[in-house]
Amino acid sequence: MLWIDGVEAPAGVLDRGLEFGDGLFETLAVADGRPRRLERHLARLALGCGRLGIAAPDPATLAAELRHAAAQPGTGVVKLIVTRGEGGTGYAADPGRAPCRRVAALPARARAGDPAAQGVAVVTLATRLAEQPLLAGLKHLNRLEQVLARAELARSPAAAEGLMLDVHGRLVCGTMTNVYLVTHGRVVTPSLARAGVAGVLRAELLEGWAGAGTPCEIRDVEPAEIATATEVFVSNALIGVWPVVNVDGRPLPVGPVTRAAQARAAAA
Amino acid sequence: MLWIDGVEAPAGVLDRGLEFGDGLFETLAVADGRPRRLERHLARLALGCGRLGIAAPDPATLAAELRHAAAQPGTGVVKLIVTRGEGGTGYAADPGRAPCRRVAALPARARAGDPAAQGVAVVTLATRLAEQPLLAGLKHLNRLEQVLARAELARSPAAAEGLMLDVHGRLVCGTMTNVYLVTHGRVVTPSLARAGVAGVLRAELLEGWAGAGTPCEIRDVEPAEIATATEVFVSNALIGVWPVVNVDGRPLPVGPVTRAAQARAAAA
Repeated sequence: MLWIDGVEAPAGVLDRGLEFGDGLFETLAVADGRPRRLERHLARLALGCGRLGIAAPDPATLAAELRHAAAQPGTGVVKLIVTRGEGGTGYAADPGRAPCRRVAALPARARAGDPAAQGVAVVTLATRLAEQPLLAGLKHLNRLEQVLARAELARSPAAAEGLMLDVHGRLVCGTMTNVYLVTHGRVVTPSLARAGVAGVLRAELLEGWAGAGTPCEIRDVEPAEIATATEVFVSNALIGVWPVVNVDGRPLPVGPVTRAAQARAAAA
Repeated sequence: MLWIDGVEAPAGVLDRGLEFGDGLFETLAVADGRPRRLERHLARLALGCGRLGIAAPDPATLAAELRHAAAQPGTGVVKLIVTRGEGGTGYAADPGRAPCRRVAALPARARAGDPAAQGVAVVTLATRLAEQPLLAGLKHLNRLEQVLARAELARSPAAAEGLMLDVHGRLVCGTMTNVYLVTHGRVVTPSLARAGVAGVLRAELLEGWAGAGTPCEIRDVEPAEIATATEVFVSNALIGVWPVVNVDGRPLPVGPVTRAAQARAAAA
């Protein structure tokens, strides 16, 4: 039996996604009633299912459900959650259990101003990311670090995003974005081998730079490198690319690599 | 709108517990229709709410709901999940939102043999625990590391529990238990300042040893110390105390400190 806020729940079951964060999610932008970057999102989900040992849902079924949700009037964002479903005893899962998929059609999120055009201020947060190579890169449901980071960021109302360091003090990502520096004509973005989420737009931008011959490095990044960067920007699949015009109070210009990344993100 | 496995959900909302693991849980043993260690579980929950910035549910309401669930026929375990509830935009939570509480009455878990009497074999797992001081000690809903560890443990069918090390190779805990060594007449149990869950039975045992004058150390523990231990045991609130009679193939006797801890766990 299950009670929710004191009321008996008719379908009294617990999903392992709620019990343990035992699952993955994707958040898709919607344009003209269609989900953007559908194939990239499904590919990342399949990769995550493989690493967590969750049976991957049929991609054709998922694609049809995501397209159906995106076509609902007023939908700006489609969220997909895939969990290992019900069952198992404690942390141990039933290996044969089918996964559970949830698809939500949500309105677009309102944002103040025009951050893509004007750029945003960011601050470096004190909340650090743990290093867990087994989960790094995945968009899994264990996101308490990000929840704590956003609570810290809320105390800096002028900042639209917070930069996060790992426990060794290396730059990893924003609370909801990947981060890029332009330094000596090269794009530098942190390795996500030990922490962080490998964004689908990040993958798209990296392919674009590789195809255009733009030098790009994926490696460990010290936060001190921000001081020597000529451009800084952040990305995710919902917001696209935001220029960073202020880091911890230091102003930065918006440069040509950032604007080219924005154009690529808008076009793809 | 929300669809679950392709079917539109009448109450189409997403809970932050499912979305982000944004919450805490407690799993209470039930004896004679009553929840055991109720006050300790509620105290740990309140501590966790404070650290995560979740409004703590009224403890009297929680106690009444947990007692009601425990009194249902056939209940062996009561599980409480407290989440930050619905709402918020992405990782950022609505600060004023009331938490959501779920109480489940579950049957007791069947276990093979009589592990409390005969002891169990354990193996040291390759799955490591990340170090996150902001979350260490809490019984929060971000438990993918434990899910992965149990999947690894399932490949060692003779072992009832797996020992977990942190990323620096220090012993932290079992997948579902706290762990204790007896060495040179002292009880040693790992510090949980950077990883692990601070069990309610661990707290009870620590108080018992302090009250009885039994020397006890909470500190960093190297796995090599297991080789010099004269007794090893594990505990959690559901299983009580299990003697460990084999670690990675090396047999160990069941000693007097272990049996005394079992007696204390059974009596409290």
